[in-house]
Amino acid sequence: MGQPKFKRSERIAAMTSILTNHPSRQFSLGVFSQQLDALKSALSEDLSQVKRTLETLGIGEIQSVTGAGGGIRLVPRMPLEAQQAFLAQLTNELSKKERVLTGGYLYYTDLISSPDTVQSMAEMLAQHLDFSQADYVVTVETKGVPLAFMTARLVNRPLAIVRRSSRVTEGSTISVNYRSGSTGSIQQMILSRRAIPTGAKVVMIDDFMRGGGTARGMHDLMKEFDAKVLDIGVLMTTRQPEDKKSGPCTALLYLESVNEETGEVVITPNHALFQGSLGKGDI
Amino acid sequence: MGQPKFKRSERIAAMTSILTNHPSRQFSLGVFSQQLDALKSALSEDLSQVKRTLETLGIGEIQSVTGAGGGIRLVPRMPLEAQQAFLAQLTNELSKKERVLTGGYLYYTDLISSPDTVQSMAEMLAQHLDFSQADYVVTVETKGVPLAFMTARLVNRPLAIVRRSSRVTEGSTISVNYRSGSTGSIQQMILSRRAIPTGAKVVMIDDFMRGGGTARGMHDLMKEFDAKVLDIGVLMTTRQPEDKKSGPCTALLYLESVNEETGEVVITPNHALFQGSLGKGDI
Repeated sequence: MGQPKFKRSERIAAMTSILTNHPSRQFSLGVFSQQLDALKSALSEDLSQVKRTLETLGIGEIQSVTGAGGGIRLVPRMPLEAQQAFLAQLTNELSKKERVLTGGYLYYTDLISSPDTVQSMAEMLAQHLDFSQADYVVTVETKGVPLAFMTARLVNRPLAIVRRSSRVTEGSTISVNYRSGSTGSIQQMILSRRAIPTGAKVVMIDDFMRGGGTARGMHDLMKEFDAKVLDIGVLMTTRQPEDKKSGPCTALLYLESVNEETGEVVITPNHALFQGSLGKGDI
Repeated sequence: MGQPKFKRSERIAAMTSILTNHPSRQFSLGVFSQQLDALKSALSEDLSQVKRTLETLGIGEIQSVTGAGGGIRLVPRMPLEAQQAFLAQLTNELSKKERVLTGGYLYYTDLISSPDTVQSMAEMLAQHLDFSQADYVVTVETKGVPLAFMTARLVNRPLAIVRRSSRVTEGSTISVNYRSGSTGSIQQMILSRRAIPTGAKVVMIDDFMRGGGTARGMHDLMKEFDAKVLDIGVLMTTRQPEDKKSGPCTALLYLESVNEETGEVVITPNHALFQGSLGKGDI
């Protein structure tokens, strides 16, 4: 029994599902041609329909890579209005009184552990930061791991998770000490020698930044690998101090203030994301 | 300027991409009808083509939920042969001499931090464990978080990450002590009171299980929440001890032995996954 032939709309369903399920991963037309028993020329036409549709709706880009080893890949996109609506909704949710914890901290672990919410956050970070030169996405354990991993997935880069203590399952490690911006205490940051190669270029993704001490530590740690932090993206950063130790960083939200007594929380979306260009977004 | 009308193949591209990008999430036909400016009856026909295609290729299921609040959702699937090929490739990769660490541990952090590899592992766990009654996916920090989160994403459940130490950003917590199966030492497991509701049903996902001490601890921790561990899924488990403290657990791979002297590693795929039914897989 041979492979059944598929109609155009069926080939489109198959390729769209496979491409969407592996964001930014390059597929050759030859592989699809075999799997779907169709000519490459027909598949090219199919894909131009997919491209036009996703771009019209603003939900994805089909990119062609020409030449030997060429192929196509799909990069999910979030329309501008959807991004703004999402940040407004997130701001609203995060400002709820019951999220205020002792010490003026904000509970939001539920939001960064929820697949749909993390997906949207990651789509925004993937779109507004430039990953084109990045070899790895890095983060520091633990809360930011889902967001960092989802961002890494969207740009199809491996993730390296920096630990706060040494583990026998990581082999040889390199560690640096850093001063936490929040507590002022000296802490340790540890990464397996095997986690990234010497000279790697990385983008750091985390859930939260206050003073930038953790990011400063990441810069130091990367230097030990002869590696370089190209950019930093976080879900939320405090407005104060304005002069972070980390250097430049892109946040989706600004935490303006938390009043532990009244439970009043003030958060604003980062409007700069929507000024000028639609983001760097190249992969 | 009104919404442009889309052709059938374009509607199919749009719906397939949206559904694939949000696995197991239910969408109402009404939403698609508005977004694509098409009649629900036409969309139903479109979706039956998508369904037939994905099922023929074994790469996804379209499930219809009827009645008020009904809709459709897409659950990615991995064909049986692809699963077997993936496990064979993984076994091969994991058996490399250079992965053996001092103490007979195996380095595999790179594999569980790599988007495509984690995607396939998660698709297998989502397919072979039963999440139909689960409210949450739970895991213990840190290495297994990407795998647990990707599995949670595929079955569209929130993730709860159990910590090994207390954090001010988690609010009130509940902790239990447990005996680590690997080291025999007493360790602590901590979960925010807010992370899961009383009475929740959870499926635990982790990267590795040796003696089952961590899983035993999870059972104890869940009892404190009046919650219940329905099932446990891991990437890899040691063949010995056969009688794990955890109770039943589904693993993709068995670690038979590691010889620290010679660097010989013996790993076998869990063949039981492919006997009988194609897995429980209901969501």
